Amino acid sequence: MKVVVNVRLKSGVLDPQGKAVEHALASLGFDSINSVRIGKQIVLDVKEADENDIKKDIEKMCEELLANTVIEDYEIVL
Amino acid sequence: MKVVVNVRLKSGVLDPQGKAVEHALASLGFDSINSVRIGKQIVLDVKEADENDIKKDIEKMCEELLANTVIEDYEIVL
Repeated sequence: MKVVVNVRLKSGVLDPQGKAVEHALASLGFDSINSVRIGKQIVLDVKEADENDIKKDIEKMCEELLANTVIEDYEIVL
Repeated sequence: MKVVVNVRLKSGVLDPQGKAVEHALASLGFDSINSVRIGKQIVLDVKEADENDIKKDIEKMCEELLANTVIEDYEIVL
């Protein structure tokens, strides 16, 4: 089954990539944008198992590898 | 209002970042993963306007800047 993990910078953490895209969009003439933040979307193909077990496993993966929890938040979408 | 754009590599396009994470998870002992693909999640804060206008605008941004449509697909979540 597919599990999606969205990893985003915590609010307050500077996002230079987002800022660059924000300025690029403005210079292309798109003036309706207030701000841009860029995160990662990780799509995992996981072997079928109990949903709660999978969720626990994915949480562990996020804490250990997928997200830097000092500056990033993650959201697991089963 | 917030608009989320998910940008993913098309299936069939090699994803070295995903492969690296796949191997890293395996070497950490997570053996329930079949494959990993990594994309971008772009969160735009857009000035309030008609939803259809916003969608059209965002589509144009995706085609022009946010996604490389040769190798990437995008999905707009209003």
